[in-house]
Order: sequence, then structure tokens, then C-alpha cells
Amino acid sequence: MKPALVLDARQEGHACEVRVGGGVPARLAELAAGHDRVALVTCARVRRTPFARRAERALAGSGKLALAHVLPDGERGKTLAELERAATRLLRAGATRRTLVVALGGGAVTDAAGFLAATFMRGVPWVAVPTTLLAMVDAALGGKTAVNLPLAKNAVGAFHPPRAVLADPVALATLPARELASGMGEVVKYAALDPALLPEVRAAARAGRAGQALVAACARYKLQVVARDPREQAERKLLNLGHTFGHGVEAAGGFSRYTHGEAVAVGLAFAFRLARAMGRVDAAAVAEVGDLLDRAGLPRRVPPTVARRAARLMSYDKKRTAAGLRWVLPRARGNAWVVEWDVAAPDGAVAAAVAEIGEAP
Amino acid sequence: MKPALVLDARQEGHACEVRVGGGVPARLAELAAGHDRVALVTCARVRRTPFARRAERALAGSGKLALAHVLPDGERGKTLAELERAATRLLRAGATRRTLVVALGGGAVTDAAGFLAATFMRGVPWVAVPTTLLAMVDAALGGKTAVNLPLAKNAVGAFHPPRAVLADPVALATLPARELASGMGEVVKYAALDPALLPEVRAAARAGRAGQALVAACARYKLQVVARDPREQAERKLLNLGHTFGHGVEAAGGFSRYTHGEAVAVGLAFAFRLARAMGRVDAAAVAEVGDLLDRAGLPRRVPPTVARRAARLMSYDKKRTAAGLRWVLPRARGNAWVVEWDVAAPDGAVAAAVAEIGEAP
Repeated sequence: MKPALVLDARQEGHACEVRVGGGVPARLAELAAGHDRVALVTCARVRRTPFARRAERALAGSGKLALAHVLPDGERGKTLAELERAATRLLRAGATRRTLVVALGGGAVTDAAGFLAATFMRGVPWVAVPTTLLAMVDAALGGKTAVNLPLAKNAVGAFHPPRAVLADPVALATLPARELASGMGEVVKYAALDPALLPEVRAAARAGRAGQALVAACARYKLQVVARDPREQAERKLLNLGHTFGHGVEAAGGFSRYTHGEAVAVGLAFAFRLARAMGRVDAAAVAEVGDLLDRAGLPRRVPPTVARRAARLMSYDKKRTAAGLRWVLPRARGNAWVVEWDVAAPDGAVAAAVAEIGEAP
Repeated sequence: MKPALVLDARQEGHACEVRVGGGVPARLAELAAGHDRVALVTCARVRRTPFARRAERALAGSGKLALAHVLPDGERGKTLAELERAATRLLRAGATRRTLVVALGGGAVTDAAGFLAATFMRGVPWVAVPTTLLAMVDAALGGKTAVNLPLAKNAVGAFHPPRAVLADPVALATLPARELASGMGEVVKYAALDPALLPEVRAAARAGRAGQALVAACARYKLQVVARDPREQAERKLLNLGHTFGHGVEAAGGFSRYTHGEAVAVGLAFAFRLARAMGRVDAAAVAEVGDLLDRAGLPRRVPPTVARRAARLMSYDKKRTAAGLRWVLPRARGNAWVVEWDVAAPDGAVAAAVAEIGEAP
């Protein structure tokens, strides 16, 4: 086994240890030892896996495990009603301000459990143990936590960086194929942001698997961006490439029809089509990103009704201003592109891209 | 009209202007001008008052008022379900990350709207315009925001200091007598913490009214404590005097039978009785605080069933540790007392105090 890679993810003055590799159960037991109690938050699908069982056993062995709270799978766990249920269970189980919340699962679990940690008794420490590719390369990194409103993804949340992120790619071995592909949606986003990641991403898309090197490369990229702009005042907005229309797609599908990564894939395709409609990039750029999405087994289109509904719902995006939506979009430079944020887009170009995304392929 | 007093309430590096006095509508209009939009959050009882109408008119005149959201009166507005409703209305009204939330009302409104501001799109700026004595001297100051769980008061929340607190004691003119008395619960707490405040507090309790001098003196005291310990690691815990049993009383009454200040009054009486049962103070101290509460028209006891239920529910207090509850309690010094935090209390002494509080007077 390769030794775990430990990245420095100091955020806004707080230390956050990001480990990519093995040894998660032992590290969890060490972290538990420093707290009053531990509250494990996970979901049913994850809790059954061998990786999760080893982690839970290690926490139980520490003598600190006060409860294991099981959220509904996926985005159904990311609601204010589930927050109320979880916080009430923590109260009943004797959780205190010095209780450590351990979020074990995919991005929905780390988002929801992180927001629980951000707000329970006005904030308790937490650790993220991402078990999906998506959570390892994106959701569990950077301190954003949130739940959804029926109208909009992640509309209620907080910045609350975890004390540690413990990602062991071994957990990906039991990941359903659709979940692995979903993670590739964020991975393709990184490749669209940083050409240096392209070879690694192409290889993973071709092989249909992701290992420690890919996870570490994506994590390193994201942590660098977050370190420079933790509160998303500027550069961090880049990481929302594909997420404006993508969040609309998720909401349009009732947060169940499309996974987050699938919606981001459609959103990436949308962003490049919109950029082309605005004359910012050419058809080759649209095709290049489309090809990466195809290889990763991800969608690039949705039915016309979904596209139109997504277009309406994306108006609730957090990046909007009083003057309208602000986009993260590529712009041609040489034979590649750079990505820019806070871009205004004409209504006509948006409508054209919505029509294209909603067409038959 | 006395000129408004402006206190410096810089908190964790962020500027927070605290004004006590007139000119609130004009200042609101100035603050609104610096933001995309304004979302007013209030409750029905307050919105009808002349003071609130002037404030709302000033916001409307700024051209920035996107919506006025009316919470249910009192603690019924402090739930996660109401947070969901309010955040959804903000989304629909076009609120952005640069929207200013203006919380206009009593402590329940400032707590709930402050938590909305803390979490909507992961945090937007807000201004508190407290309209009750309780909110002016306590709830709106110090950056704590929260909603309740059915089991426990303020169990879910965040530290999110407002940009400004605009308190005009003129608003107290239309305050129901019971609400004024409720505010005196916190005022008596300050007098129990700082003997220098006693003359002012005695005069207010006798007169049955509170003016600018009293509000300013209490606000100044609280802001000094918060400035030294914004995240309640130590000294700020003093401000929870009376709140451990008090929060239990509120929860025992379903957050509707007792106002917060009434519950704090009972909690203050409880803290002194507990301290006496532990031999920390003598009967004269118990009587002195009881006398202040009587003069302010506040309760010192509850029916035995309420006292027992409050004792059970206070086990969910945020100040608990894995080893049990930690109290804020007086200890005799000379012919007065000092107040200490993080005090453990024997079960027998707690039981004795519960029995006394639940007795007929």
C-alpha cells in the first residue's frame, strides 16, 4: 500500500489535515481520543460497506462513540427537516460542544453533516471521511457545508472547515459505477480548469477507475484555489464551472433524477455551449469537453422539458447579483482556453444554449 | 431628544456599530443604499407599531426593499421550518449574497433573522433593529443567532455578528407591560453580575420603565464582556447566569407559556437558591435578587410539575460537558458576591433548589 499523502489545507487560520491514502480507522481513533464524544453521521448505503465498518469499529473501540446517525441516502439527507432530526438525536445522545462529528459518506453526507457541525450548539468540530470520488475530490474539501431548499441546491449553509479530511481511495472499490461516473463530473471540471490535469483525467476516464494519484492531484488543485480565496470572493468562483446550469438540472430533477456529478456534466457542456454562443470559444472546445464527458460515461444533454425547467431554476443561483446571473465561462486563448468568473451572458445566448442542451444528440 | 449614543462593538475583526437613540429610519436608509437589496424580517405584532412603520417606510424609500417577511410572533418564529420558509421567500424575491437582512423586532426576531442571515447562501450581512427591552440589552448584541429545537432553546445556531445594532428606546413606548417586564429579567441579570448597575436597575424596576441610560449601560456592559471573549470560551459564560434552568423552564412551557425574560427570572432565582444549597451564598443574597425580581414584576417560582420538567430538559443545555452540567453561580465575597462559571453542582443541591422553586411562595 502506498503511504498516505498528507496535504496542508490550512484555511482561514485553522489547521485542516487532508490525508489521501490508507490508515483511516487508526487516525479516526486518534482524533476521537481528543474529544468528549463522537457522533458518526453516515447513510445506509455507505454504512454497509467494509470500509465504513472498519471506520465505525475503530470509533466504537475508542470508547467515545455516542451515536451513529443514519441519514437518508443521497440528497434526501440534505434538508432542514433532516438537520432537525439529526440535531435532536445528538442532543438525546448527550452530545456537547466538545463532541466531534464524523461525516462518513459521499458529498451529500459530508455537506449535511458538516452543516450540522456548523450549527449544532453554534458549532462543533468535525472530520470528513469521504467515500465517493466526488466527495474525495470536491465536496469534502474547502469548508463549504449546506443543505438544499426545494427550489435551490445548497441554498442554506455555512463555511465551517473540518479538522481533517481522511480520504482512502480503497473505499472506491465498492462504489456503484454510476457514483464513480458522477465523481468524474467534478474531475472533468478540474481538467477544464487546469490543462495540467488532462492526461491523468483522460487515463482515468478511459480506465473507468480512479486511484490515489488522481484523487491527490484534484485535491491539491482545489486546496490551492481555496487557500488563496477561502470565502469565494474571486478565484474560488472558478470551481463553480458547470454548476450554475448544473444546480438547475439537479433541482429540476427533484434532487433525485440526476446525481450531482451528472448534473455538473450537463452544466459543463452547457457552459461551453453558452461560451460558444457568445463567441468566446469555438466548436472544437465544445467537442473536447464533450468527448471527455462521453468517455467518463456522463450525460451532455437532458430532455427539453428538463432543460427549460433547469433554466428557470438556475435563476436562484448563489452567484446571481441584482443585475442577473454571473457565469463562470471559458474564453479561447491560443489553441486552448482560460476560464473566467463574474461573466454576464446575453439572454439570447443563454436561450440558444438551453435549446441545444435540450435537443436530441 | 437626546443624541444617539454610538458604542464601538468591533467583534472578531468585524466592525459593528451599536447605536442607542433616535434616527433609526435615516440610518437604515443609509445602510440600505450600500447593498443590492434589502429583506426586512419582522413579526406581525411589531410591524403594526408606529416605530416599525417609520423604519419600513424608510427602507421602502431607499428603493432597495425586496420583501418584508413576517415571522410568527415570539418563539414560534424560531424554528427550522420557519427558516426554510423565510429562505425560500428570500430566494423568490431575488435576494442575492449582497442582500442586507434587516431584523426588526424582539429577541426572537433578531435571533431567527440573524440565523437566516448567517446561513442564507452561506451568509449575508444583517442589521438588528431591536424593538423590545430584552433585545436591546441582550439578544441583538454579541453576534449569537439561533433557532430552537422542541427539546432545547437555541440548540441550532451560529455566531454571525450584525453590521449594526440600531436601538431606539422610543420603541419601548408601545411595548406590552409583560414584554417590558420580560426585558427586566435580563436587566436584573446584569445587576447580579455587576453591582455598579444596581442603582440604575433598581430605579427602572421601581418606575416600571426603561430609558436610554439603562439600555446604554446594559449594552455597554455586555459589549465589553463579548469583546474580551467573543466565542464564549470563558468570561462570556457569565452572561448565561440564570439561563441553564431558565432555558429548561422555557422548553418545559413549550416556548409559549413563559417569555424568555420570565424564564430567566426563575432561572436567576434558581441559581441563587442552588448556590445557597451549596453553601456558596447566604439567604440574604437569595432575598436581594428575589426582591429585584419582585419589583420588576417577574416570577421567582413555577408550579412543581414545571420545575421538574425544566430540571429534566436543562440536561440538554449547551454548557454541559461529558461529565455533566456546568453552572454559572454566585459565590459570597464580603457582603456581596462574585459570579463564577464552569461550576459543577452536586445532584442533591440541584434537587433541593428544584424543590424550592416548585414550592408555593
